[in-house]
Amino acid sequence: MSNTMWGGRFNSGPDAIMEEINASIDFDKALWRQDIRGSKAHVAMLAKQGIVTSADAKAITDGLSAVHAEIEAGEFTFSRSLEDIHMNVESRLAEIVGPAAGRLHTARSRNDQVATDMRLWVRDTVDALDAQLADLQGALAEKALAHAGAVMPGFTHLQSAQPTTFGHHLLAYVEMLGRDRGRFADARRRMNECPLGAAALAGTSFPIDRRTTAEALGFDRPTANSLDSVSDRDFALEALAAASICAVHLSRFAEEIVLWTTPQFGLVRLSDKFTSGSSIMPQKRNPDAAELVRGKTGRVIGALTALLVVIKGLPMSYAKDMQEDKEGVFDALQTLSLCIAAMAGMVRDMEPELKTMKKAAGLGYATATDLADWLVRTLKMPFRQAHHVTGRIVGLASDNGVGLEKLSLAEMQAVEPAITQDVFAVLGVERSVRSRVSYGGTAPVEVKKQARRWLAKLAQEAAAPAR
Amino acid sequence: MSNTMWGGRFNSGPDAIMEEINASIDFDKALWRQDIRGSKAHVAMLAKQGIVTSADAKAITDGLSAVHAEIEAGEFTFSRSLEDIHMNVESRLAEIVGPAAGRLHTARSRNDQVATDMRLWVRDTVDALDAQLADLQGALAEKALAHAGAVMPGFTHLQSAQPTTFGHHLLAYVEMLGRDRGRFADARRRMNECPLGAAALAGTSFPIDRRTTAEALGFDRPTANSLDSVSDRDFALEALAAASICAVHLSRFAEEIVLWTTPQFGLVRLSDKFTSGSSIMPQKRNPDAAELVRGKTGRVIGALTALLVVIKGLPMSYAKDMQEDKEGVFDALQTLSLCIAAMAGMVRDMEPELKTMKKAAGLGYATATDLADWLVRTLKMPFRQAHHVTGRIVGLASDNGVGLEKLSLAEMQAVEPAITQDVFAVLGVERSVRSRVSYGGTAPVEVKKQARRWLAKLAQEAAAPAR
Amino acid sequence: MSNTMWGGRFNSGPDAIMEEINASIDFDKALWRQDIRGSKAHVAMLAKQGIVTSADAKAITDGLSAVHAEIEAGEFTFSRSLEDIHMNVESRLAEIVGPAAGRLHTARSRNDQVATDMRLWVRDTVDALDAQLADLQGALAEKALAHAGAVMPGFTHLQSAQPTTFGHHLLAYVEMLGRDRGRFADARRRMNECPLGAAALAGTSFPIDRRTTAEALGFDRPTANSLDSVSDRDFALEALAAASICAVHLSRFAEEIVLWTTPQFGLVRLSDKFTSGSSIMPQKRNPDAAELVRGKTGRVIGALTALLVVIKGLPMSYAKDMQEDKEGVFDALQTLSLCIAAMAGMVRDMEPELKTMKKAAGLGYATATDLADWLVRTLKMPFRQAHHVTGRIVGLASDNGVGLEKLSLAEMQAVEPAITQDVFAVLGVERSVRSRVSYGGTAPVEVKKQARRWLAKLAQEAAAPAR
Amino acid sequence: MSNTMWGGRFNSGPDAIMEEINASIDFDKALWRQDIRGSKAHVAMLAKQGIVTSADAKAITDGLSAVHAEIEAGEFTFSRSLEDIHMNVESRLAEIVGPAAGRLHTARSRNDQVATDMRLWVRDTVDALDAQLADLQGALAEKALAHAGAVMPGFTHLQSAQPTTFGHHLLAYVEMLGRDRGRFADARRRMNECPLGAAALAGTSFPIDRRTTAEALGFDRPTANSLDSVSDRDFALEALAAASICAVHLSRFAEEIVLWTTPQFGLVRLSDKFTSGSSIMPQKRNPDAAELVRGKTGRVIGALTALLVVIKGLPMSYAKDMQEDKEGVFDALQTLSLCIAAMAGMVRDMEPELKTMKKAAGLGYATATDLADWLVRTLKMPFRQAHHVTGRIVGLASDNGVGLEKLSLAEMQAVEPAITQDVFAVLGVERSVRSRVSYGGTAPVEVKKQARRWLAKLAQEAAAPAR
Repeated sequence: MSNTMWGGRFNSGPDAIMEEINASIDFDKALWRQDIRGSKAHVAMLAKQGIVTSADAKAITDGLSAVHAEIEAGEFTFSRSLEDIHMNVESRLAEIVGPAAGRLHTARSRNDQVATDMRLWVRDTVDALDAQLADLQGALAEKALAHAGAVMPGFTHLQSAQPTTFGHHLLAYVEMLGRDRGRFADARRRMNECPLGAAALAGTSFPIDRRTTAEALGFDRPTANSLDSVSDRDFALEALAAASICAVHLSRFAEEIVLWTTPQFGLVRLSDKFTSGSSIMPQKRNPDAAELVRGKTGRVIGALTALLVVIKGLPMSYAKDMQEDKEGVFDALQTLSLCIAAMAGMVRDMEPELKTMKKAAGLGYATATDLADWLVRTLKMPFRQAHHVTGRIVGLASDNGVGLEKLSLAEMQAVEPAITQDVFAVLGVERSVRSRVSYGGTAPVEVKKQARRWLAKLAQEAAAPAR
Repeated sequence: MSNTMWGGRFNSGPDAIMEEINASIDFDKALWRQDIRGSKAHVAMLAKQGIVTSADAKAITDGLSAVHAEIEAGEFTFSRSLEDIHMNVESRLAEIVGPAAGRLHTARSRNDQVATDMRLWVRDTVDALDAQLADLQGALAEKALAHAGAVMPGFTHLQSAQPTTFGHHLLAYVEMLGRDRGRFADARRRMNECPLGAAALAGTSFPIDRRTTAEALGFDRPTANSLDSVSDRDFALEALAAASICAVHLSRFAEEIVLWTTPQFGLVRLSDKFTSGSSIMPQKRNPDAAELVRGKTGRVIGALTALLVVIKGLPMSYAKDMQEDKEGVFDALQTLSLCIAAMAGMVRDMEPELKTMKKAAGLGYATATDLADWLVRTLKMPFRQAHHVTGRIVGLASDNGVGLEKLSLAEMQAVEPAITQDVFAVLGVERSVRSRVSYGGTAPVEVKKQARRWLAKLAQEAAAPAR
Repeated sequence: MSNTMWGGRFNSGPDAIMEEINASIDFDKALWRQDIRGSKAHVAMLAKQGIVTSADAKAITDGLSAVHAEIEAGEFTFSRSLEDIHMNVESRLAEIVGPAAGRLHTARSRNDQVATDMRLWVRDTVDALDAQLADLQGALAEKALAHAGAVMPGFTHLQSAQPTTFGHHLLAYVEMLGRDRGRFADARRRMNECPLGAAALAGTSFPIDRRTTAEALGFDRPTANSLDSVSDRDFALEALAAASICAVHLSRFAEEIVLWTTPQFGLVRLSDKFTSGSSIMPQKRNPDAAELVRGKTGRVIGALTALLVVIKGLPMSYAKDMQEDKEGVFDALQTLSLCIAAMAGMVRDMEPELKTMKKAAGLGYATATDLADWLVRTLKMPFRQAHHVTGRIVGLASDNGVGLEKLSLAEMQAVEPAITQDVFAVLGVERSVRSRVSYGGTAPVEVKKQARRWLAKLAQEAAAPAR
Repeated sequence: MSNTMWGGRFNSGPDAIMEEINASIDFDKALWRQDIRGSKAHVAMLAKQGIVTSADAKAITDGLSAVHAEIEAGEFTFSRSLEDIHMNVESRLAEIVGPAAGRLHTARSRNDQVATDMRLWVRDTVDALDAQLADLQGALAEKALAHAGAVMPGFTHLQSAQPTTFGHHLLAYVEMLGRDRGRFADARRRMNECPLGAAALAGTSFPIDRRTTAEALGFDRPTANSLDSVSDRDFALEALAAASICAVHLSRFAEEIVLWTTPQFGLVRLSDKFTSGSSIMPQKRNPDAAELVRGKTGRVIGALTALLVVIKGLPMSYAKDMQEDKEGVFDALQTLSLCIAAMAGMVRDMEPELKTMKKAAGLGYATATDLADWLVRTLKMPFRQAHHVTGRIVGLASDNGVGLEKLSLAEMQAVEPAITQDVFAVLGVERSVRSRVSYGGTAPVEVKKQARRWLAKLAQEAAAPAR
């Protein structure tokens, strides 16, 4: 059967395998809301400009509303032979309103139509992601404020390095997510130009008004070059890049949750809500959600790689390769959304094991830097020399199998005679943490300040959203 | 509601978001045939070893057949709260056969079960891909034999370089696909070890016989280390790597089809079966299938990247991250299958434009190398000098706006006095092509030999398949 | 020999392979300027805060200037046993100024030091890239203005679709590069926070003033969380993501240059400056630079993938894995710089083949859309019907082997009786192009407007640079 | 200045930026040994076939030996204006032997020459990697044999799951590396065909003997299609894919080393040789080498991604993009080599902390499966029921804060009355491990068998290497 859309010239229908590889309706039906919304804006503009009559415009608009209702109610039959969402909607519209439906596609092409639909979808999704990220920031900042003084080990190379606090640690992620939101916001701003009216690639001779459609669809302005408008998938690439970096952030926290919930680390506890069991080992409490958040990073990065590969080396303007932008973008952004939700659930669910944290914070000579700094400050020793002296004292403690604070003054003085009793004051983890008052440091007073700054900012955003 | 699988210990059910992120049934139901096949082999072995009674084994086997029938008939209800295909099948089995069903999971874990299922799926799919690749090779080799002498331009840097033949060009892809099949065959051989019996990670104390299950499932042998058995996803990575390289090959041919079907090149013609039209430009005959094959390379490479990211840095043994192996592998291998089918269709459909090809073969001074070689052979000139002389003669022809064969002998002799009338014999494209008789060269006699070698090999494989 | 840096505690030196894998001086010496600049800012702040004496600060500053001079003059010996640029500089400083050098590292760690150095390097490089991209935009916009009316084919699916102009086509890239610059500017803004003072991970107890160092180094502010400061490599990832998208844009133009310079397309000509020859085929004029720009996209995308893989799943805070941020970032951004330079050279060098362009613009029934639009406009036909009618007329012309404008009125009327003589006015390519006056369309008047807009914007930027 | 190589036709030299982007000598000089080796084989064949005289062949061969000596001695000046290693060598050859040097390039092109050089380099490197991997397998298998019975926790989801042994764990990596070696061996076999003689793309009319050169260079046979010969980079892609999977394996072990050397896990100890200190925290013993091995995975995967991107969509035959195959392949394979060496060093250096291992093996109710299996075996309970009963007993123990073996019989019987005193025999970790005697299981007797099997295999390979 000849394709009803572009069959005027074709003598035979497509091969079965051609339909199989070519049809996009199975996945681009996700764009149905955006497609109908774009068509309504388009036909309203056509009427305003006198390109179609008001009567036709009204019929088309009402027809589109009817299609919308059918799809929403699950009563719409998507057809593969109609290839994509655009032709499925238009074809049903024609059944409902008759020949007038054929006027909708005036001064438009599927090239600018799909570019518009995808931008709308990505923009909507980015807005939803921003709200989720703000929620996760809020969950983290609240927990950080509650535990601003909860001493825990700070790790480098996964070795205890210096004491820090649970609140301070959580705020590191608030910062990361803040940058993620910034990237999505920048991507949103950059993508918020309307390609509708670029038509196939060259613009149109109909007296359209692109500013009207742009405004109706919430875009800041129309795109400035028609060839670019139909060839560009930067908005998808940039959203995937932002999503990949965000997913990497989540993967880092997920790794920490996996580590911290081991009996060996035991720094936090997740409830049954976010752990699962084993089919054969009944005792297991597995941090499945954290593992999945970590693993799903691969999927998001894979989607970014995939689309970069697709677009690489494509000449202007539209090429069918670009149809491959959809599934990866849909999947990656929805995956990220799921991961943020799971992470927010885990953050709210997670309880720190305060005693274990504090005990671990003191292991591994974690206040050695405090000793070195004391030598610099009190004995005016150059830091490098203080570092060397500290190394020898730690070596001594290690040989004796004790912590720094358990060495006697005499033992320390055997390494550096000028050391005095005062030194012991800086060897405790609480004191160490309290002393780190530099801006952005781990001192609880500083952590509280930062947590409150974020909570105020989030409250302000919630009260007066940017959009 | 408490999860029926591992709820013995858990007081509260999973959070909604936990079920959302954790459940794999939406995609791992693709493994249902493999899962039932594996369970049947397992229970048969348990009975043979006396670990379950024959009666129980029979009940379980019959029950599994009933489940198989239900799924095949589309009458099976997959449940998200049962998480995955394994528990969906086992739970239904329990409804059918009662408590005996509980004996099926003896000496087994989901860890070795899913590893077995996935290997079976990948192995089955690799076998299907091999058959498709052989079919595509056959289509190419037949067309190559038919057009062994059809002169066309050979390009380097997309500039005409030397004349070649259409047949020779097609055989280049037969070689590539041959290596692809080799890679898949090697991957298949390497993956063909059975993890069943590794249980959760450490093996089992039940007196199982792993060789029996391995053999029943068509594996060459059981895997040799139980920890590795449940942690290993090499078989998926290697299949994705082979698929990526194969997809890249197809993308190269797809690019050529896109180029060749432009009016500018016009070297081949695709029928309406493999081209499509435009919603706004009625004259278009777009090579959509070729573009999609080219574009879908991104998806396959993306899946490889994704899984490498997932597995990177995972400690032994099973981690939930590994559940992310499925969707990417399913999608990438099925995508490759679709691309091979589309390519086979295009190859069979494609007709060379012989006149255009031959004319283009002579453009761009494509026989300049023949001239240089003549100078070496006849005048005993060192090649580098011959190359330089040829460059000057080409420059002269180019300045005059004519082909090499249109220069007069006198004009050539002005550059190199020793040139004789004989030189004109090597300046024609037919003669050039016929002269390239080195092994693997483009001389039609050589092309025919290679095409026949491949057709014989393919016929032999078809007659006596390796498996 | 024991390492002089952290040897206080270690009894034996590192294994040879350890030194081999661990030392970064071979590549991080690229950061020498940034490292010295950062150290000068740090010591000035230490003196201002009274943490070191003015005399020590002066000695250190003078010593750092001396080291700077030595490296610049090529008289500095980098040593692998000193591991990295930080220790190489500090060690030489100690030779020059004696024990006072040991005071430089007070209230600092290599963790915040290297994070600062890398940010400075990436920021400097992003600034240089922005200038290059502006230059390339200028070259394109000037050429676009000069050729705003040069009719050429507009392609979709690499098939002639509708006529456009060379100027319009070039402006599509000006838009893309504009977004690229926007992405780099956003990345720059986001990265422009100073990690110095975060020390190892927790901040410091010395009374430092982080705002002073931030300002001295041109940062907008200090980073707000010390753990994040030393763990974050977002600035590198985001720069690589922006670079990857930019490289993909360049790859598209490069592909077009490769296509356009084939004898088959022949749309533009590159001079000898940007083509190269062959060792065996003297006639070849290969667009090597364009091919390399296209190919080098892989390298940039590879670097992005690599760093995403590195950071994925890393717990806080510094891990040695992060040393892998350097080579990829250095190589990718320098590669992009080279590609932009090569592209700017090609754009300036490139000459359009105006006659070939215009002739090609009319091939393939490229004004079919104009015919369909005429039917809509003049006969008030619904677009879908007009599209169908046009398809049949094109089919007729194609069967007759002629262009649309060569059909007789009678032939057209046989398809659609209402067609009148007026229709022929819209079938010419010049007229088609002139009619596309919608905003961003290909009408020369619109192209000139856009080209001038960009040139004015670029001139304004040059007159008053943002930074 | 006009390029001396292909300057015959060109009126102006390349732009500076063209030379910058085009020249490959800075990296392809790594191929110098392979290039000279290939040229010697080529000229010997030319002489054998009477294409050059014996005298010329001898002069060329001696000249090539002289060039070889110069490069080896570091006395050779590589020149950028000569672009690549091929022209650098040939140009110097011409200086040494005069015009006869010009005969070397007869019946050859840089296209087949560089393809040959790269295959030789990759093949040589793959051979070296295989030897390194065998060495690492040996180190692991020896340590596994020594610690076949050292009980340690077996983890899933990084939670203690079931007891295993250190030897068993190490053997998992021996298996992975065995597959890696298999992949490299398959890649080697597949790449071991000689492209020399394919010339530019079409073969040659000179009466060459490709089997002679193939054999002289250690190839199994000449390639069968000249177009494919110069277009194919499968050998590089496949080697990178094998390297990526191998790097992922190493990253998993590296992650484990990082985990195991934390004070929290404390399962193994690395000496000072493979740990490093901190510039500010003197107590740190950081597993830098392991972290770098983990991190460098990114670089290898990045190189694979990069080359897939480069080759995607390239039409036949040679395109300059393919020059991008070199740096990534050089860097990735050398990086892998460094990582294997570092890992072999760490394995030999690493000492298990036997007491900590054993204690940890019993934590987390790791013998719960043994209890469930006992219920199945002894009470003939279906596994699912046994699993449920076990879950309730574990819950009871967990509520009481004790291990399973510390519950009284009465407490167990409260859950399941049929339990008898015998059950306590299966609750110890040693017993658990000894009971897992299934093939590939963790029972020490089985571990020893596997370790000895590998050691014998490795010894056999060493005695009679495949090549």
